[in-house]
Amino acid sequence: MGRYKLNIEYLGTNYHGWQIQPEEITVQSSLMKALDTIRINFDNFQGSGRTDAGVHARGQVAHFDSNAGMDLNKLRSSLNGVLAHDIVVTEIEEVSDSFHSRFDARYRTYHYYIATEYTAFDSLTRIHVRTILDFELMNEASKALLGSNNFGSFCRTATSTDNKVCEIFRATWIQESKAHLYRFEIIGNRFLHGMVRAIVGTLLEIGRGAREMENIDYLLKANDRKQAGPSVPAKGLILEEVGYTKWKVND
Amino acid sequence: MGRYKLNIEYLGTNYHGWQIQPEEITVQSSLMKALDTIRINFDNFQGSGRTDAGVHARGQVAHFDSNAGMDLNKLRSSLNGVLAHDIVVTEIEEVSDSFHSRFDARYRTYHYYIATEYTAFDSLTRIHVRTILDFELMNEASKALLGSNNFGSFCRTATSTDNKVCEIFRATWIQESKAHLYRFEIIGNRFLHGMVRAIVGTLLEIGRGAREMENIDYLLKANDRKQAGPSVPAKGLILEEVGYTKWKVND
Repeated sequence: MGRYKLNIEYLGTNYHGWQIQPEEITVQSSLMKALDTIRINFDNFQGSGRTDAGVHARGQVAHFDSNAGMDLNKLRSSLNGVLAHDIVVTEIEEVSDSFHSRFDARYRTYHYYIATEYTAFDSLTRIHVRTILDFELMNEASKALLGSNNFGSFCRTATSTDNKVCEIFRATWIQESKAHLYRFEIIGNRFLHGMVRAIVGTLLEIGRGAREMENIDYLLKANDRKQAGPSVPAKGLILEEVGYTKWKVND
Repeated sequence: MGRYKLNIEYLGTNYHGWQIQPEEITVQSSLMKALDTIRINFDNFQGSGRTDAGVHARGQVAHFDSNAGMDLNKLRSSLNGVLAHDIVVTEIEEVSDSFHSRFDARYRTYHYYIATEYTAFDSLTRIHVRTILDFELMNEASKALLGSNNFGSFCRTATSTDNKVCEIFRATWIQESKAHLYRFEIIGNRFLHGMVRAIVGTLLEIGRGAREMENIDYLLKANDRKQAGPSVPAKGLILEEVGYTKWKVND
């Protein structure tokens, strides 16, 4: 029996999120079905974490066990051949039996894309905002998110995780080479359900002058989802990377 | 009464092509519906040419007449506000009453995108080809397309256009900055129905060694669709620009 690690890229538009669900097409179920289709026996298929319906990934990671002796390049090619075009396995490697895609992850990087002009071509992977936003102010406000804090104010209330402390290593707004496109980059050891989208929604309120920048400090103590801003749509969010080594600035 | 010229960008994935059709959602019908929604009276709405179902555009052009006095920036903004996110009006200008988006066009530029590796993110706007292709040879073969020729071998047989002569100004393969991505760029005074996709399908056969390069000269005399290669899928094709001045190399 060997353990295999997959890197996966997907456009989440047509999927009910990552996690397998009865009677819904999800990214995980599509990958498991693809393994079945090419007749690979497997067990313990597990992802690094869920992504919500409509959220995308460039660097999702999963693992599974199998006793099928496999040429990994051929396996990758066969999987991509049977998967729909919006899911791609970018890498497969054999890993130690003790590797766990979820528990061993040391950091996760998310990007959220905002366009200040309409563009049809990337309309599935960004939101368009018509209001004038002060991105410098939003960048300044983001600094308050760094370090270890209770993100209960940015967590979906239905989620029953007790520990709401996350450590954020990086939180910054970047203007892309296309002048009308901005990206929020956030890197942390873990993220609560809906956390990035609630943070971006709150920062947008700051950026248009509807909330004071200092309010972030208050939210990080309030542990109350109702106090933060509304969640932004799923389609602008991309799980960019899951890291298995300690996060460093130069990564 | 004034005449207005629109520049339009769209992701064709969710549309039954450009041209208005009863009971189908098309790009043209979506634009006309958007004008209705924002209560602009208009007449003679006409595009520069049809694009097939699933074909995209960065530079489609259309025109319409209206007697509604309009702030053009506001009109553009209102249209984009009611249109779905995959259609964007990028420019509106008032033009002379004699301007005609179709009859005045002097050249059209099409791009066709081929990826030699799978990528989920742009899977709607390119095709993936697993066979090894000789792009240099395909580029060499494309030169035979230049000038005025009868493109009957590359035209959907159902189409009843008598004149099948088109003048091609440019036909070349370009490797994009991402090494696994190639673009076929073709510029001509006019294009027959299905012409670019039949040309690309034929060049792919040359690129994988299934057809001789010299065969292009024969096809340009044969006037027989059955002799050329199969059409490549719609999703890799983009109408990039419609030009209203004489085409020049430096454009």
